[in-house]
Amino acid sequence: MKTKKVAIVGASGYSGEELVKLLLHHPFADLVAVTSRQQAGQTLAQVFPKFASHPKTQALRFVEPNAEMLAQHAEVVFLALPHGVAAEFAIPLLAAGCVVIDLSADFRLKSAEMYQDFYAHAHPAPELLQKSVYGLPEIYRDEIKQARLIASPGCYPTSILLPTIPLLKAGLIKPEGIIADSMSGVSGAGRKAELDYLFCECNESVRPYGVPKHRHLSEIEEQLSFAARRPVVVQFTPHLIPVNRGILTTLYLSPEAHFSSAEEMAALAGKIAACYASAYGHEPFVRLLAGKALPDTKNVVGTNVCELAWRLDPRTGRLIVMSAEDNLVKGASGQAVQSLNLLSGWPETAGLI
Amino acid sequence: MKTKKVAIVGASGYSGEELVKLLLHHPFADLVAVTSRQQAGQTLAQVFPKFASHPKTQALRFVEPNAEMLAQHAEVVFLALPHGVAAEFAIPLLAAGCVVIDLSADFRLKSAEMYQDFYAHAHPAPELLQKSVYGLPEIYRDEIKQARLIASPGCYPTSILLPTIPLLKAGLIKPEGIIADSMSGVSGAGRKAELDYLFCECNESVRPYGVPKHRHLSEIEEQLSFAARRPVVVQFTPHLIPVNRGILTTLYLSPEAHFSSAEEMAALAGKIAACYASAYGHEPFVRLLAGKALPDTKNVVGTNVCELAWRLDPRTGRLIVMSAEDNLVKGASGQAVQSLNLLSGWPETAGLI
Amino acid sequence: MKTKKVAIVGASGYSGEELVKLLLHHPFADLVAVTSRQQAGQTLAQVFPKFASHPKTQALRFVEPNAEMLAQHAEVVFLALPHGVAAEFAIPLLAAGCVVIDLSADFRLKSAEMYQDFYAHAHPAPELLQKSVYGLPEIYRDEIKQARLIASPGCYPTSILLPTIPLLKAGLIKPEGIIADSMSGVSGAGRKAELDYLFCECNESVRPYGVPKHRHLSEIEEQLSFAARRPVVVQFTPHLIPVNRGILTTLYLSPEAHFSSAEEMAALAGKIAACYASAYGHEPFVRLLAGKALPDTKNVVGTNVCELAWRLDPRTGRLIVMSAEDNLVKGASGQAVQSLNLLSGWPETAGLI
Amino acid sequence: MKTKKVAIVGASGYSGEELVKLLLHHPFADLVAVTSRQQAGQTLAQVFPKFASHPKTQALRFVEPNAEMLAQHAEVVFLALPHGVAAEFAIPLLAAGCVVIDLSADFRLKSAEMYQDFYAHAHPAPELLQKSVYGLPEIYRDEIKQARLIASPGCYPTSILLPTIPLLKAGLIKPEGIIADSMSGVSGAGRKAELDYLFCECNESVRPYGVPKHRHLSEIEEQLSFAARRPVVVQFTPHLIPVNRGILTTLYLSPEAHFSSAEEMAALAGKIAACYASAYGHEPFVRLLAGKALPDTKNVVGTNVCELAWRLDPRTGRLIVMSAEDNLVKGASGQAVQSLNLLSGWPETAGLI
Repeated sequence: MKTKKVAIVGASGYSGEELVKLLLHHPFADLVAVTSRQQAGQTLAQVFPKFASHPKTQALRFVEPNAEMLAQHAEVVFLALPHGVAAEFAIPLLAAGCVVIDLSADFRLKSAEMYQDFYAHAHPAPELLQKSVYGLPEIYRDEIKQARLIASPGCYPTSILLPTIPLLKAGLIKPEGIIADSMSGVSGAGRKAELDYLFCECNESVRPYGVPKHRHLSEIEEQLSFAARRPVVVQFTPHLIPVNRGILTTLYLSPEAHFSSAEEMAALAGKIAACYASAYGHEPFVRLLAGKALPDTKNVVGTNVCELAWRLDPRTGRLIVMSAEDNLVKGASGQAVQSLNLLSGWPETAGLI
Repeated sequence: MKTKKVAIVGASGYSGEELVKLLLHHPFADLVAVTSRQQAGQTLAQVFPKFASHPKTQALRFVEPNAEMLAQHAEVVFLALPHGVAAEFAIPLLAAGCVVIDLSADFRLKSAEMYQDFYAHAHPAPELLQKSVYGLPEIYRDEIKQARLIASPGCYPTSILLPTIPLLKAGLIKPEGIIADSMSGVSGAGRKAELDYLFCECNESVRPYGVPKHRHLSEIEEQLSFAARRPVVVQFTPHLIPVNRGILTTLYLSPEAHFSSAEEMAALAGKIAACYASAYGHEPFVRLLAGKALPDTKNVVGTNVCELAWRLDPRTGRLIVMSAEDNLVKGASGQAVQSLNLLSGWPETAGLI
Repeated sequence: MKTKKVAIVGASGYSGEELVKLLLHHPFADLVAVTSRQQAGQTLAQVFPKFASHPKTQALRFVEPNAEMLAQHAEVVFLALPHGVAAEFAIPLLAAGCVVIDLSADFRLKSAEMYQDFYAHAHPAPELLQKSVYGLPEIYRDEIKQARLIASPGCYPTSILLPTIPLLKAGLIKPEGIIADSMSGVSGAGRKAELDYLFCECNESVRPYGVPKHRHLSEIEEQLSFAARRPVVVQFTPHLIPVNRGILTTLYLSPEAHFSSAEEMAALAGKIAACYASAYGHEPFVRLLAGKALPDTKNVVGTNVCELAWRLDPRTGRLIVMSAEDNLVKGASGQAVQSLNLLSGWPETAGLI
Repeated sequence: MKTKKVAIVGASGYSGEELVKLLLHHPFADLVAVTSRQQAGQTLAQVFPKFASHPKTQALRFVEPNAEMLAQHAEVVFLALPHGVAAEFAIPLLAAGCVVIDLSADFRLKSAEMYQDFYAHAHPAPELLQKSVYGLPEIYRDEIKQARLIASPGCYPTSILLPTIPLLKAGLIKPEGIIADSMSGVSGAGRKAELDYLFCECNESVRPYGVPKHRHLSEIEEQLSFAARRPVVVQFTPHLIPVNRGILTTLYLSPEAHFSSAEEMAALAGKIAACYASAYGHEPFVRLLAGKALPDTKNVVGTNVCELAWRLDPRTGRLIVMSAEDNLVKGASGQAVQSLNLLSGWPETAGLI
């Protein structure tokens, strides 16, 4: 395989750290630059002792972010920056011919209006919104292969979109009344020195937040609307739980079909199973659980896998779908590397299994 | 105040331990007997080193459970036994004139049919189902004061019923489509040597279980049906999270009123606030959160308080209500002591604040 | 009992919060003022939702710290301030006639030289060092009863001094070669927004710190030197572990007596047991474990108890003593209240059991 | 590289699971059989959903352990069995020509007497004790390359021996008075359904155990005696802390040289640094920390690395050495794979970085 030179801007946060780990061990990607204003001058080994056994971490030093320099050295640049800051880097990098894989929310929406509604300021480069590809490989594989600007999905959206899109596309569930109840580990809040995320404030605690209008709703609803071909409004409640990593999402969905009798239920179950088998039966990173198994974050943490299980409830007429993923891998950096593999013509699982 | 002699049957589990703690420190209850097959012969101090500073724990020894003996010594007997076993003790204790406060599910339902449906065997004493009082003081205070047999509510039901009953009674929400999504600490599973509850299997893990028909649904639905005066079917999903104690429940409810305009929303919000203020504004153990505050289990663990907050979502037309409680206190032993206080004519908060 | 008006300066940290809790529930102390620069204007209920059920928390508001105001309203003032800041408040409060119970390290040493050596600046009020009483009730009970300025011991020192002082005083161990290896929960680091104490940096982590010369060594060594009547130098290694609360200390001590034979060992064991029984057999807050039991922080967290167990190792000739305490209770706020009880003439266990 | 067929006996525990993970991803090892009485008939994917993305886990099924069958299919057999059971399998496997890498304690001692002393029964195959090689590659690399029976070291011993052996061999520390204070994650207790290891019994708890004569002392003392060329007796205290994985050991050692002056201290520090640099400067799996860094289990968990740091304490005349490792990797399965690499002629880091 032909290798590619890659760089990471903003590599000192949790998703940046996970990207470093994945790219250091990637068989075809060659990590040539990492940037961090705070860590500039330090080696990767100094900042991330955990990776110090990898020979490259002794030599590679963090540098100040500089688009011109990055464009000279790297063919693909990952942006692991806060929302709003990423766009500033993406514009010159794209102009200089780099492929940009952005882990922030800056290019995830197609609609600049929705961006303004949820992020409370005008989008800095609305023309790029049309050119960016939403980096969910199971849904946009072909587009990703051709993309120059990839907007890698958020952690919550991935856990919600993967279970829901195939059902909506197949017309098996109603677009109305979708509820997503999610629990996330604390790394989702980033490496920020805030009282709310101190050990003693999170340990032995569980709490909802961002109710009822979390920013991630914008990309969730836009993507589900594309799948349903009409506007979809979602009820979404995130909760913070005391684990480092992992998102567990429970979805409450309404099947189009009634299923009060055993026959109706069996028929509907068959259709749902077939829908998921068709969508994900051959996907390397979606695991359809069988039998009595239900998702558990401990079975996906450290992997790029999203686990799925579902149950029909004849008492309520609802379909319950549950998913589990590692918010830093399939919910962020692993998925970004999956896109890198696709656009580079490498095996999709390279460096991810 | 006149004191009362009390005993605990099955005092070596987690809710039994919490009961011991509460009753040792209670100003008017006199703990005279504790039973446990496994710990018979040991002192309270030996089994629960944490309480060893209390002088009574040096002398009081676990004994084999024996209804006759208990009835001789105690006026009120708490049953902290597995479901099914509690009824066997309740029957002779009641016959001998004791007041029984049962923490199991054995007497929580009025309908023997529903019992059979959810517990898969016939109820051993269906006539007692009519005599028992559901021990949720905020709803059945007057009945508890007169009761001889109290069926203390389950932990999940408490976290769901307190937020929902006033809204149903006031006709503010539809009885249809109620969804309760709950997260519980591991003590809810009891002190049982099972692989699923080992530290390494729970730590860094979050997982749903009992989907879609958990046994607690029976008492939830029966109580909500009483409040709504028609049958209520609930969607309920419990999750296990890595904390020792605490339940966080997020409820998805449908207001009867539309509220698309700002005026409609303000009007509805006013009604909900008034409803809760009327129901709980003077309750010592329900805390209505104001402003931006949302429930957090760390603010209720170790207390008998259930925290409540709610949000109207004009985008979806739903009402989101969130509650937090300590599953072993307001969800079990504290609530049982609250009933003891009521039926003994003591201040309701005695030993609980 | 006669009540006393008390105040807390710096009540928004973890030990301040624990003091608030203890004093709210204290039968004879009347909490009349709490200060915090950051929280001034807020009620106790707003800052600590967990205590909101207590009626006083609705009315009592944080105020800016002001020694004059405090002296007007309170007879006893607790200082829960950072080291160095406490002395500034203590001086005017003492001058105004208040009793001061200081939880910081500012007045724990008798030697101003040792203070300078360990804290790297001159002591601001060296004359007060002679007047202050080291607030370890099991050792300085009589002095505490008469004190106007109490230097409440640190958390690590308490866990080390209680097991060691009686043995040194009895001449049962050598003053040389004492090693204390301690593990502390994260609340010991205070409520500070620093990266090192984020959930994701502490969870699934254990690490030593402050090796080899931690500041707490100064008071440990001074107190042990008093007990041994000659200079004692201690090896002390603290470790940070992922629990909210609790300190476990393992001490490696060298008995004066040889004990290679079974008889020698039995004789020495008898002396140690007698020494501890004499020192602590009647102490309400020291628990001497018997049989096979070893200390466990979960048996002391939330209590003012220090658990002790010991083992003679005939293979090495050493005595191993292990202690467990809650760093915020017996290691800080509970111990301070124990001193309050003593100097107020109240039962020593008031508000602490 | 030539591949080798390998098998795991007892693959359903925590170290067995880690071995499965490492061998599935190993570039040259071909995992052909896994045994487990409890899981016989199940695929690897069913028992370990976390590895289900690896194609081999769909086909490979657990079988009943059977030495004859294993010898037919595998060239190297790993034993991840309880102490005592491993020897029963090792004997026929060796006779059948397999190489055996035993993760239990059964062949770690050279002295059958010491085995009897610590394990309270006669060794079942004392003649094999002389033939086995202690599988600590940094110390016995050459012997491992030629071995047919490897006794892979225990987790605590690895964390103690690596820091201590070079110092003893170089005569830099006294063989007397060595103290090892260790903290281990709960996976060290194995996947056993016992009350002591339930989540609620371990979370928010820290406790010593096995004081003062833990079984691991036998191999620690034997190996240190070899290094010192005279009998070494060690004080060892293990503690259980609430993390899944990781061991942190703090060692208290006495340098042979005095170092009261700054010059003496600098000279000694230079010798220690040189000793460690010579022993481990080129080792891929020992990380010598520089500057202010101290070991932290979170920097080694999931890796085969043992981190080391040390400090001289001029106040006490002691050398403090701290180490951190993953008890399931460098402390068990990773180290066993390191031995596999050596005896197979593969790069020592194959499958481990």
